[in-house]
This record gives sequence, C-alpha cells and structure tokens, in this order.
Amino acid sequence: VSANEEGYDPIQWNTSTNTHPPWLRFHLGISRWQMYQQKDPNLSALTQQLASHRIVSAVQKSGGTQLKLVMSFPNYGQALFKPMKQERDEETNVNLYYFSDFERHNAEIAAFHLDRYQLSPGALGQLTSILGFRRMPPAVGRLINVIKEVKDITTDHKLVTTFFTSPVGNACFYGQCSYYCSTEHAICGRPREVEGSLAAMLPDESLAPRRSWRSPWRRSYSRSKLADWEKYSNYCDSVKKIPPYDRGTRLVDLIDMTILDFLMSNMDRHHYETFEKFGNDTFLIHLDNGRAFGRYSKDEPSILAPLVQCCRIRRSTLLRVRLLSLAPYRLSDVMRASLSQDPLAEVAPLLTEPHLSALDRRLETVLQTVHECLQQHQHHSDVIYDDIIDYRED
Amino acid sequence: VSANEEGYDPIQWNTSTNTHPPWLRFHLGISRWQMYQQKDPNLSALTQQLASHRIVSAVQKSGGTQLKLVMSFPNYGQALFKPMKQERDEETNVNLYYFSDFERHNAEIAAFHLDRYQLSPGALGQLTSILGFRRMPPAVGRLINVIKEVKDITTDHKLVTTFFTSPVGNACFYGQCSYYCSTEHAICGRPREVEGSLAAMLPDESLAPRRSWRSPWRRSYSRSKLADWEKYSNYCDSVKKIPPYDRGTRLVDLIDMTILDFLMSNMDRHHYETFEKFGNDTFLIHLDNGRAFGRYSKDEPSILAPLVQCCRIRRSTLLRVRLLSLAPYRLSDVMRASLSQDPLAEVAPLLTEPHLSALDRRLETVLQTVHECLQQHQHHSDVIYDDIIDYRED
Repeated sequence: VSANEEGYDPIQWNTSTNTHPPWLRFHLGISRWQMYQQKDPNLSALTQQLASHRIVSAVQKSGGTQLKLVMSFPNYGQALFKPMKQERDEETNVNLYYFSDFERHNAEIAAFHLDRYQLSPGALGQLTSILGFRRMPPAVGRLINVIKEVKDITTDHKLVTTFFTSPVGNACFYGQCSYYCSTEHAICGRPREVEGSLAAMLPDESLAPRRSWRSPWRRSYSRSKLADWEKYSNYCDSVKKIPPYDRGTRLVDLIDMTILDFLMSNMDRHHYETFEKFGNDTFLIHLDNGRAFGRYSKDEPSILAPLVQCCRIRRSTLLRVRLLSLAPYRLSDVMRASLSQDPLAEVAPLLTEPHLSALDRRLETVLQTVHECLQQHQHHSDVIYDDIIDYRED
Repeated sequence: VSANEEGYDPIQWNTSTNTHPPWLRFHLGISRWQMYQQKDPNLSALTQQLASHRIVSAVQKSGGTQLKLVMSFPNYGQALFKPMKQERDEETNVNLYYFSDFERHNAEIAAFHLDRYQLSPGALGQLTSILGFRRMPPAVGRLINVIKEVKDITTDHKLVTTFFTSPVGNACFYGQCSYYCSTEHAICGRPREVEGSLAAMLPDESLAPRRSWRSPWRRSYSRSKLADWEKYSNYCDSVKKIPPYDRGTRLVDLIDMTILDFLMSNMDRHHYETFEKFGNDTFLIHLDNGRAFGRYSKDEPSILAPLVQCCRIRRSTLLRVRLLSLAPYRLSDVMRASLSQDPLAEVAPLLTEPHLSALDRRLETVLQTVHECLQQHQHHSDVIYDDIIDYRED
C-alpha cells in the first residue's frame, strides 16, 4: 500500500511495538489460544479508534449474503461495518428460516461483550470478563453518516448507484447482495446518520490464512430433511472418534461455542474458522454473530445439542457459567453494565431488557443440562474436562 | 364455462332475476352512477357468500406487483383474495416509496366500509352509510386455510412450488410476483389459516370493458423529479380546461376520491377506472385500496392537493363530511361500528384505535381546507358544486 494514498497518514512504524498502530498490535497479538490477552492494554485504544477515527474509504464486502462494508482508517486499519436493519424491539419473524434472518448490528456488539475481556476493570465489581473466551474480534457501535462517510468517499461505483433520498428526506442506500439489497430494505439515515457495528478486521487471509470447518452439528439447509445429529441420539459418540474431535480440546472448544450461541440464540454457526498456522490445537474464532439476539421470547434448545449429546464441558466454563447465575454477577446485570460502555448505548441500550432476561433464563438451561449430565455419569470427570492451562482466570 | 367442472354447481339460472346468484345480481346492478344501490337487498347475500362459500379454485392474478389470488365459488362467483402481510399495529416504514408499500387486507375492507352503503341499517343510529359513495366493489374479511383452500385446489403449478413449512410448522407460500414474492416475505398460516380480504370481482373486461384514466394529480415515480401539480399552484386552472374535467361532474368526482384517499392516507391512486359503456358521465371506480391505512401517526397533505388547488367540492359530500365531524355521527365511531360487523372483527379489530383517531383528525383537515376555500372565494357556489341528482341521501 502506498503511503501517499489520499486520506491516509504516512506510515511511521517500524519493527518496534510502540510505533505500531492499535490494529497492528491487535493482529500481532493474536495467539494460538486467544484473540487478545486477558488484560490487553491495546484493546481500549483499538475500540476507541474503531468508534471515532476518520473513515477514508468504504467499499462493499464481497461474499456473504447481506450488505456489509469494509471501512478504512487513515492509519490503514480496517473494520467491517454492519448497518442497523431492524429496530431493537423487533423479534425475528417465526416463519423465517435462520438463514434468511437479518443480520443485526447490536448482536455483533453484544456478542463481543458476552465473549470478551472487560474493557474497564471495576465496572463489573471484581469481575473483569463475562464468558472470558476472548475468541472474537472487537466490535463497537458507531453512528455513520451515510453521505459523508460512505457515498462521498467510496470508490465502489455500484454502491453509489444505490443511494437515494427517501420520501421523508432521509439518505438511504441498499447496495448489491443476494438478500435484502433492494429499496424495500434500504439502509436509511435519520436523516443521514445510521447506527452500525464496526468490528476489527482480522489479518488478511494472505498473511494469516484461516481454515474453515463444517460444524458436525450444522443445521440442515433443506426444508424437509433432518440432519444426522437430529436423527441419532448417540451422534456424539461418532463425532468423538473423528479427528480433530478425537483428541485435545476441540470438542470442548466447540461446546464453549455452543454455550455462547445458545445464550444469544445464534443458529447460524454452520461453519467455524481457525488460524491455519496454529494447526488443530488452537482456539475457534467466534466470527460473524449478526444473527444472534433475534428472539427473546423463545429459546432454541437445538443449539445446545452438542452439550446435551456429548455431556462434556470445560471446568473453567462451567465455573464461569455458575458464577454468572449468582446474584452479584448475574449475567443480565454484567451484560447491561458492560454494554453501557459502548458508544451507541447513548442512543439506546444495545440489548433491550427482554433480551437480557433471556440470557439469565438460558444460562439456567445450560446449568440444568450439565446437572443432568452429571447425574447420568458415574464420574464427574466424564463430564467435566480439565484444561491443562486455563486462560480465563481473572 | 361448463357446468360439469369439478366442484362447481350446475347452472340453474335464467333471465329471471330471482334465479340469479348474488354475484350476478351485483354485476347486473352496476349503474352509470354507482356500484350498487343505496338500499341494495342483494348486498348482504353477496358479502355473506364472499365470507363463507366454499372455494373451488384459487389461482394467482397476473399483473399487479404483489401476490393476490382469484378465488372461485361453486356458483361461478369470483373474488380477489389479498392475504394479510403486516400486523395491524405496524406502520409503513417512512423510508419506503408508496409504490413499494405492502398491500394490506384490512385496508381493502376498511376502504369498502368508508366508501359504502351500510349493511345493517340501525347499527349506526339513523345513519345507513358512511361516505355513501358506493363506488367500490364489496370486500369482506375471511380466514383462509392455505392448504385446503389454496394448495390442494389450485391448478396453478407455479404457485404450488412456492409452498413450504416454516421452522415453527406453519404452512407458508410466497407465489410469483415482482415485489415481496420470496421466502423472506412468505404468507404464513397459524398454523394453516391466514387472514385475508375477499373482494367481489367486477364483470369480466370482455363483457364490461373499463377505461383507465391517468390522474392529473398522479405522483412522480421518479425519486428526483417533481410532478407538475407540485410545481404550479394554479395547476387546477389548466386541468379544468381539459376534457373530461371541463364539464359535468368529473372534477368533483375526482375530488370525492381525493377526500376518500386523504382520509385513509392512500397515495397509490395514479390511475382510476370507469366503465367504458357509460362514457364520460359516470362514477369513478374506487378500485384497489390495499395501500391505504399504512400510517396513522402522520397525515399526507399532498393527497388533498386537488381539493386545495381546485377549491371545489360536491355539496352532498361537504354535508356528509360535516355530519361525520359531529359527535353522534363521528367518523371514528361509525367506522368502528361498521367494521365490527365484518367476520374478521372476531379475530381483531380491522382498524386499530390510532387509525380511527387519524380518520377524525383528517376529516377536520378536509373541513378546514373547505373553510379556507370559502374565505378565498366571493360566492359559495364557486366552491360548492350542486349536483343535479344526489344519490347519497339516506
């Protein structure tokens, strides 16, 4: 990339870490075990830049079914922008298949908080993380001016042709994609600013290739056929025999992800990714959470199938889930406190109260499921997996 | 049509009116001045059949942008079915252009009540009609079983391929059309029955050809260009000089339609139709009102442009509008009472209270506009048009 490109700052960093911009520190800090460290001093600088830095470029991200934009900052940092498409109190239509559900900007942000390291220690009492997985790229909320920060600066000519002024004078655009890219589903400012999530981009695939894994519990995309895991109650026994689930932490890693997804009711985890250079023994990237938090009035028990069928859970995860069910650390309370620190919390709470209550209700279901597993098995060690190193302690 | 077709009754009528089924009496009763008579004894028989008769055929209606079905009854009567697409408390997205607004089944029904002869005299006190235009084909609400009354009996193979079962087990279909015919906008039963409107079909175009007229106040379909009526305040002067607006009742007929449309906030009247055989001196058919009643929190003053710019109104219409602003006959009250007689009122009120309040508010705006017209003109007769015959007295 040329340092003379319009809008970009000259590159002034070298091999020394203190000269690196936050996005580069983030990329270089990704380890085999986690996306960022437990007490990462870079994280607040990174999220602050995502929330406020000048946007010098905005282009549509190819691939994926719904509209998203890749935004660039003067220091060459990049973020994935997902615009608000649904009011926060709307629930997903029960007749929609999960793959045609809207992606929600607030789900991306809330998922990061649920998964993450806590930005401001002290805000949650003695707790400095919620689930404490740290397997998701940081995401923050931001108001975007669709004219100044998209239309005026984009080099994406096809995107420009989809801008229009709505009957009430709002600036709108709809982009080009396979779902919901039409005037009927336009993204509209009020009159120009629209809410959205900005998630830090992972290192480019050319530098840090990723491997995509089909989830053994992926849903059937057919409207009539059942998936194998829906048909066979002993399905987990066969999964446990197949690499990479036959050794190491892959199975409990997948169950960690299952618990995260059940809590936020995310049905859209047909695949997951890892960084290729770390091989099989590495954390699972909890990427793309836009279809979470679509419903609060109902839970989706099928998401929990891996836990139910395998009866296996990391000790540290179980302890954390237990902790989050206790009054001083109740999940809804720590999530409310954590989300209140996002810049968009000023506009409206990122999750409505019914969504927060649903988190507590679902946490109870996870605990109940583990309780039943423990009753079914003679030895607790059959259910509870002890990791050699627990990265979550805080 | 062969009388032996499956599901149909043998034809047993002759030239004598008493042998005719209600739909045929309706067709034969259409006059130069109105769709049906003021005290038409056939109307309740017709609406009852629409609401309850067995459906023997259901096929997609070609043309038009959104899904609608033509349904046939054993006596060869036909009705246009518009399924429910939106919850009654949803307001149209302010960023949608009116031509991409959903069609609403309850708008079709409510429009008929607003325009019509009152089915049960006495229900509204001494009043037996609301606006009393009688220029709309009767429409009633009905629950339709999408499997038994559509999928199982249709001969429309393309329609059949769009049926599916939703994740919660509801029977859904989406049909083929240019707007909203996709899984994301499917029509779904709960689990099989869906609300809809059934409107009596007009006589076939081959028997009673209709003429389509572009409204001089049609909206610009461009997102940037204004229409002439938006640019020139004296626009009506030029319209008054052009046939058929230069003589007879055409201008006040159009203003009647304007008042109806403003009350129900229908922006979708770019064209209107008349029966060709009646020439220029005939009533305007108030057809296709599915985009009415989309918003209650806002009015759309531009709909009233013909009244504002021409300052002309039928005396009988003005008297009726005044009457409906008075406490014992308040428009919201008579509409609430009238709509409560529709079969779907058992499921939920056809119009929510905010919509009913909006009717009263808009009626005041109509009266205020006429008041200002009368102040601007020296002679009341410049504003108030006296019809030779007033078909509305009751």
